[in-house]
Amino acid sequence: MSENWHVIPGSIAAPLGFRAAGVAAGLKPSGDLDLALIVSDDEAIAAGVFTTNQVRAACVTYGQAQLAANPRARAILCNAGQANACTGADGDRDNQAVADLTASALGIDADLILTASTGVIGQRFEVDKFASAMPDLVELARSLDREQGADLASKAILTTDLAPKSIAIETDIDGHPIRLGGIAKGSGMIHPNMATMLAFVTCDARIASNLWQTMTRRAANVSFNQITVDGDTSTNDMLLALANGRSSAPEIAANTPQAEQLQAALDEVCIHLAKAIAQDGEGATKLLEIRVAGAATPTDARHIARVVACSPLVKTAAYGCDPNWGRIAMAVGKAGVVFDQTKLDIALGDFVLMQAGTPLDFDRATAALYMKEHDTLTISVDLHRGTASGLAWGCDLSYDYVRINAEYTT
Amino acid sequence: MSENWHVIPGSIAAPLGFRAAGVAAGLKPSGDLDLALIVSDDEAIAAGVFTTNQVRAACVTYGQAQLAANPRARAILCNAGQANACTGADGDRDNQAVADLTASALGIDADLILTASTGVIGQRFEVDKFASAMPDLVELARSLDREQGADLASKAILTTDLAPKSIAIETDIDGHPIRLGGIAKGSGMIHPNMATMLAFVTCDARIASNLWQTMTRRAANVSFNQITVDGDTSTNDMLLALANGRSSAPEIAANTPQAEQLQAALDEVCIHLAKAIAQDGEGATKLLEIRVAGAATPTDARHIARVVACSPLVKTAAYGCDPNWGRIAMAVGKAGVVFDQTKLDIALGDFVLMQAGTPLDFDRATAALYMKEHDTLTISVDLHRGTASGLAWGCDLSYDYVRINAEYTT
Repeated sequence: MSENWHVIPGSIAAPLGFRAAGVAAGLKPSGDLDLALIVSDDEAIAAGVFTTNQVRAACVTYGQAQLAANPRARAILCNAGQANACTGADGDRDNQAVADLTASALGIDADLILTASTGVIGQRFEVDKFASAMPDLVELARSLDREQGADLASKAILTTDLAPKSIAIETDIDGHPIRLGGIAKGSGMIHPNMATMLAFVTCDARIASNLWQTMTRRAANVSFNQITVDGDTSTNDMLLALANGRSSAPEIAANTPQAEQLQAALDEVCIHLAKAIAQDGEGATKLLEIRVAGAATPTDARHIARVVACSPLVKTAAYGCDPNWGRIAMAVGKAGVVFDQTKLDIALGDFVLMQAGTPLDFDRATAALYMKEHDTLTISVDLHRGTASGLAWGCDLSYDYVRINAEYTT
Repeated sequence: MSENWHVIPGSIAAPLGFRAAGVAAGLKPSGDLDLALIVSDDEAIAAGVFTTNQVRAACVTYGQAQLAANPRARAILCNAGQANACTGADGDRDNQAVADLTASALGIDADLILTASTGVIGQRFEVDKFASAMPDLVELARSLDREQGADLASKAILTTDLAPKSIAIETDIDGHPIRLGGIAKGSGMIHPNMATMLAFVTCDARIASNLWQTMTRRAANVSFNQITVDGDTSTNDMLLALANGRSSAPEIAANTPQAEQLQAALDEVCIHLAKAIAQDGEGATKLLEIRVAGAATPTDARHIARVVACSPLVKTAAYGCDPNWGRIAMAVGKAGVVFDQTKLDIALGDFVLMQAGTPLDFDRATAALYMKEHDTLTISVDLHRGTASGLAWGCDLSYDYVRINAEYTT
């Protein structure tokens, strides 16, 4: 299927019936924006993908329970400043308190609120600050220009990210537009924070809850699950996706061309946000795109791509602009996927470095120049074992990664 | 069982009937020692543990085939300079050629020679250099003081290691001494090299081949498989262990106290070498020892320990002397092992940082000072889920790691 979607303005407020806002509630010592609200005028189908870490923040266990009980939501409240992880039963109570505050301010049931947090772990919420900020936040979501509100929300969820990450696209299904919007924050860590990836997607399609959950999980697998900054997994990672059915398009049914089209659009939103997160990885100077072809299964292909993107030796070689095929071959081989090393091809950009398992003569100086002059480096691997392919994204490993994570001591 | 072994001099030549030597054969551009030989006067039982990387050097496929056909050896030839990986059928022929040269110089069958290589991958051997050096190497192994010969061998297998790694111990079984010796090289990478871990163990115990292989595999699992410098796995990694039966002790039988005692001694040799490799990791300023207790199974415990030792966030915190319990909790949680986060205890040295899943108040300045003043940092984790425990070792992640691996460009 060709890409029949196009980018539109409006971010998470682009889909019909969604609004957003962000305020500075005093949760971050810096005084920056730190509390975001995304509201759907109607009850939306809600899908979530949560961290697999056994150590989970209060918002994660809360969100999992909420969606298991009733996969619907009217609003997402996200704070930056405190992760509310490793805070025990107090943390659960605090999370419930801010959900209740949000529900009360919006005049809706508390079980239609989802929460997300990022920031210092082990620190409790100052719930009164949430309470003080809530009226303004709700009022702004109501009154602001939609695009402006979404812009504030995209900034209020950030921690050490250098740039907000946002997109909206529109796809036309049987003559009816469906819109999707997304914002995300990436892996910024300042002691004692840790990388937290948060992503929120809005959509005005009409769709059944279980299909939307399946599509959201699938989109996460080809996007957020395929990026790596340092292989660490946060206690707070989550992707929440809301679909409120406000589009005039008929309900999307499973196993139809329409479902495929919506999946492609949802994948695109998630991949865009995921790549933006990798590009903004701590200390990153380059985005790495790993393309694996010729694998027996898509799972194998994605796994190898992720292992290459994650290899410190590949990442340091990228930082050093070193066309080091040996490290790429090593990383492909260590992934635990069986293949025939005498068939392995490796290319960097347009430079074929290895063919049929044997290094080729190539112009090292020109290849190094390609690496120096491009912000995005593509590494292509062909196993010649099957027909499946997969992508992953990462970033280089620089002095700044070490500086950011080592020098900021208590 | 208490530790009933003690350290003795002699390294890999300490066990009866073993000799070793090293020469500069001109394989390294530096002119340093680069070719090592370990010889057993008698045919020895040989066990091997090889890299799991799908991209394997010629010496790896050769050694695996040799041991599968006949698990016996008289000698190990190890070169540093060329890894002889990604060299195709030519590489296999070159490997066979140097094995044949060694056999011929020693006057023994070629199928009693094992080979190991480390160095630049994709580069072929200069077989004539091996041929020129072989007479000297064999003569030195015959004539040198044993300890001196072992010392040369321990140096000739190194690449960018800062220090040779060597040990010998003696254990008394039913009144008869059994001696074990070992040398290893660690993870030094210079473009386009990659980390290669090589370890060679000699022993004069009398033991059946399958039992020796089982014991070697078990020792590798609690030692070399539990260290990490950067999570990358080389194309050339191998552990070879020879047992020549020259001790006067009776044959070691399976499932006896004697076998347990020999296993403990073999574990000790391998753990000593593994820790030395971690301590000498590229750019390392500190050795990390991760102790996991209260796991359901030893496999779980070892896996979690390894994941913590491998976490870039834990490693940079160690470099920054930052008692960052949050990153340790995150790394424990991401290992994929199920546990109850409300029971998790974490200590750094004697400082309890987290108890029952909740961070404790502790003296941050004193804990940071502990980290600054110690070359070995212990991180203890208790899951309170079972009774199994496990250890892993790693090193911190410093600017020098990035420098070594990024700045050396082609």
